[in-house]
Amino acid sequence: LDYQHVQVPFEITLWIMLASLAKIGFHLYNKLPSVVPESCLLIFVGLIMGGIIYGLNDKSPPVMDSDIFFLYLLPPIVLDAGYFMPSRPFFENIGTILLYAVVGTIWNVFGIGFSLYGICQVKAFRLQDVSLLHNLLFGSLIAAVDPVAVLAVFEEIHVNEKLHILVFGESLLNDAVTVVLYKLFRSFCEMSTIKSVDIFVGVGKFFVVGLGGVLVGLTFGLTAAFTTRFTKDIRVIEPLFVFLYSYLSYLTAEMFHLSGIVAIIACAMGMKRYVEANISLKSHTTVKYFMKMWSSVSDTLIFIFLGVSTIGENHEWNWPYICFTVVFCLIWRALGVLVLTFFVNRFHVNTITSKDQFIIAYGGLRGAICFSLVFLLPDFHRKKLFIAATTVVILFTVFVQGMTIRPLVDLLAVKRERESAPTVGEQIHIRFLDHLLAGIEDISGHWGQYYWKDKLEYFNSKYLQKILLREYDQPKSSIVLLYEKLERKHAIELAEAGQLGHAPSHPSLLRSGFLCSNNNRTAITDKKLEDTLNPDVLENIQQILARNLYRIRRTGPAYNRHTLPGEAEPVEHAEEILILRHKSL
Amino acid sequence: LDYQHVQVPFEITLWIMLASLAKIGFHLYNKLPSVVPESCLLIFVGLIMGGIIYGLNDKSPPVMDSDIFFLYLLPPIVLDAGYFMPSRPFFENIGTILLYAVVGTIWNVFGIGFSLYGICQVKAFRLQDVSLLHNLLFGSLIAAVDPVAVLAVFEEIHVNEKLHILVFGESLLNDAVTVVLYKLFRSFCEMSTIKSVDIFVGVGKFFVVGLGGVLVGLTFGLTAAFTTRFTKDIRVIEPLFVFLYSYLSYLTAEMFHLSGIVAIIACAMGMKRYVEANISLKSHTTVKYFMKMWSSVSDTLIFIFLGVSTIGENHEWNWPYICFTVVFCLIWRALGVLVLTFFVNRFHVNTITSKDQFIIAYGGLRGAICFSLVFLLPDFHRKKLFIAATTVVILFTVFVQGMTIRPLVDLLAVKRERESAPTVGEQIHIRFLDHLLAGIEDISGHWGQYYWKDKLEYFNSKYLQKILLREYDQPKSSIVLLYEKLERKHAIELAEAGQLGHAPSHPSLLRSGFLCSNNNRTAITDKKLEDTLNPDVLENIQQILARNLYRIRRTGPAYNRHTLPGEAEPVEHAEEILILRHKSL
Repeated sequence: LDYQHVQVPFEITLWIMLASLAKIGFHLYNKLPSVVPESCLLIFVGLIMGGIIYGLNDKSPPVMDSDIFFLYLLPPIVLDAGYFMPSRPFFENIGTILLYAVVGTIWNVFGIGFSLYGICQVKAFRLQDVSLLHNLLFGSLIAAVDPVAVLAVFEEIHVNEKLHILVFGESLLNDAVTVVLYKLFRSFCEMSTIKSVDIFVGVGKFFVVGLGGVLVGLTFGLTAAFTTRFTKDIRVIEPLFVFLYSYLSYLTAEMFHLSGIVAIIACAMGMKRYVEANISLKSHTTVKYFMKMWSSVSDTLIFIFLGVSTIGENHEWNWPYICFTVVFCLIWRALGVLVLTFFVNRFHVNTITSKDQFIIAYGGLRGAICFSLVFLLPDFHRKKLFIAATTVVILFTVFVQGMTIRPLVDLLAVKRERESAPTVGEQIHIRFLDHLLAGIEDISGHWGQYYWKDKLEYFNSKYLQKILLREYDQPKSSIVLLYEKLERKHAIELAEAGQLGHAPSHPSLLRSGFLCSNNNRTAITDKKLEDTLNPDVLENIQQILARNLYRIRRTGPAYNRHTLPGEAEPVEHAEEILILRHKSL
Repeated sequence: LDYQHVQVPFEITLWIMLASLAKIGFHLYNKLPSVVPESCLLIFVGLIMGGIIYGLNDKSPPVMDSDIFFLYLLPPIVLDAGYFMPSRPFFENIGTILLYAVVGTIWNVFGIGFSLYGICQVKAFRLQDVSLLHNLLFGSLIAAVDPVAVLAVFEEIHVNEKLHILVFGESLLNDAVTVVLYKLFRSFCEMSTIKSVDIFVGVGKFFVVGLGGVLVGLTFGLTAAFTTRFTKDIRVIEPLFVFLYSYLSYLTAEMFHLSGIVAIIACAMGMKRYVEANISLKSHTTVKYFMKMWSSVSDTLIFIFLGVSTIGENHEWNWPYICFTVVFCLIWRALGVLVLTFFVNRFHVNTITSKDQFIIAYGGLRGAICFSLVFLLPDFHRKKLFIAATTVVILFTVFVQGMTIRPLVDLLAVKRERESAPTVGEQIHIRFLDHLLAGIEDISGHWGQYYWKDKLEYFNSKYLQKILLREYDQPKSSIVLLYEKLERKHAIELAEAGQLGHAPSHPSLLRSGFLCSNNNRTAITDKKLEDTLNPDVLENIQQILARNLYRIRRTGPAYNRHTLPGEAEPVEHAEEILILRHKSL
């Protein structure tokens, strides 16, 4: 037996296996995940495992390594979040999200820090040795809402898209603020005197960390898009580039002390539309599937490790401090949301209702990021108290808030997510309105979001697409792409139902006819509406219709390492087409 | 700048990126890969990079770590090979493959070992200090044909399926022999006296290492199949199990000093048919795609590292020894193939032609496995000579043989691989013949391969399928599955051509009608033929036809971490069906 030799990969594989099997286990009993969020169940599994390890070895089980968390477990989840981020609601609410993420987080940090310092002054609690700076440092790590925890809970309760993006977007973008404040207070703790210059430098750093992250991310994202222009002959490695470039953007940002989370999100959002157009359909399925799979596994591991790490002797149980931390976390978040939303609502027509405000405040879950940060603290005599307080806050938010938020959403009758994707008709009207508003903004001289969006779209089609897309002479309108996607999906369903060729269903005929005429109409409407719009839309549709009878079934060579069966490009067989045409006429 | 912190993942990502970009680079110029095999180009890139590193640092570039090779780079390639192994030709030729892999390898090891020992006796060469045991040890690592190198060259030349499986199967299965002989001679080198018992133990080990590997692999493979029975509600982690279980089988086998390569192949071949039936179509695409991607990257990295590691000061250039090694490798392989094929041809109707024999002998490429094994040798004063000889043999076989084998195949007019996959008609006839032969063998009392195959199939449908498949009450015949696959592919092509619903093409009507009637006919033929055959085939077809009009288009919720859009199960809408039926009548 030679265990040493294979230990590292063997144990990693076993942990992932355990996590996956736990997941299957929960889903075998359908009732369980519908009541308790998966994150709670996973932490519970972790607690049991930690208990077993503690009981057997009689020493604390290993704590989740912060390096492993930040370098290997967090990036897949953030990449998945960024890649599948619904960009429209995100950019429509970007102002509100940034306000919550930046001002809200600073508010929470200072609120929690100062009030805990106040608690420390009460002699009965025996906490006078905890300085203001240490309290602020603790505040900076405990204030940040955790994207992993938020995602795990919110994707199960299906609230409306705006509410979801407000909480989720905040949890992602507050990373920049958390990183800056945490590092600032940590360096202040180690300094003997603090000059006012240092504070100004700290404020300046916000912009460097955040905008630097965006810049790094976009650079890598556009490079990724450019690279996929050249993968036509070697389709199997296409998915790799999506993962490699996003991971590199994260690592590069971390290397320069910028926000890695912001970088990977910018990278994913920047590359998405170009990569999707360049890579093959199968590559794209693989990218999507693997991202989901990876993030799902990471997320599972994080919660299990969180449970395991909770058990042990790392804690100092000073109950007043711990209880007040929980209370202040709740109060300051609620206050912050109320105050900020008051200002937001004054400048928006589409206001945030009080029900939504409650869910935003209540959805401020803490998670593994706080946990990893508290272990990264420099050693000082009260570190174990901070670890205990962080653990309790995380368990409280994940268990109590996480488990009650679904009943509360039901009780308050919060507006839910719409069941189905927007129809082509709706999409057309949304686009129509976008163009109209961009025109109005242009005429009235008000440079609002529609104006900038339109300018960006112009820049994109004029320059970026030509560089980044393989077939840049024929860029496809999103509606044409949607049409193609729907048709393909429909075809597969038809084939699975055995309907193909036997008897074309009337609805499909009607529907596709409807889609087609809609597309044509859009193209014409769009064309008339504004000259910034792509005039190739119509041409595209014509091309799709023209390719009508040109493709016939063809099988590739039996097997090969670099290609999958059925990937070969179809060739045009003139004769076959003529026969087909003849028969259909 | 904090490079230390991200160094490990950053450098790994950069290496993979370099490898992928190099691959894209070759494929940009279509002419290059058609003349020079990719493996040669990659080694060349590696040589250049090694030269640059050597020139800049003035010390030898890092050598490929044997642990990294065996634990991380080799498994993906072998998994891919095992999973996509065409099982029919493999099992039809299993006897011949095993003969080449076991007897052929032993023949080569002793042949090369003893003749090199002869060379060492020539005083002019100054090699008298290399003992017989060391020569045999060297023979054991240089004799084994390398699956990675063989695959890289053979998949580009497209020889016929039987020839391919003979060379490739041999290269995979000789791992067990190589492992045993290598470890045996290595322990003999460290022993003072060798008893005859030790030699018998060594012979016994062959069976333990090989059969043990098969057992470990099958155990994990069937467990994997069993696990995927329960993943219906959590489709995104399905692909993970395929990778996790196969990797675990490899690691477990390595841990017990069994053949990891044999284990992972047994695992992949054992799980394939059950996993494919259990997991969703998208999961399966992801599994296939990711396997190809992973093996492609591993393979690229191996050849680049091979190039990089060649540069440096690890070599002792004793030219007589090196040249004779190359010559003996060629001669003993050629002799071995000739002698073994003579015996094989006496017992087979379908003989191996002399052209095929030449390609089998000439296709015995050496690669990274030899290279890693030679670095794992215990330190002794002639190790650098062995490293030099191994490097030269690898470069000679990959460059000279690899580059000339394609012209030789053309020149000799070796029978090529058939272009297209077998049609449904052919498949039916093959199955018909299988049943017939199984019956004949049963009656005549000759227990040949058809008899055993039939028994295995009976055992499979009677017991294994019920345990391992989710819908075990309706196991699908391979022909029904093929039919479904073809229909789905056809549907996608139709949709892409825009033909769907507008005008169903006549050929598709004809073809699917033909397929259907064929299926029915087969089912009846099969049913009449033997009662061991599945009586559900007919039922299956009826089900497919019955589902005809039942499925309608339906969209899932907008986004979720654990599911991909469009995964939801379609529901039966009674009203819609009635309307559809009414209209079609």
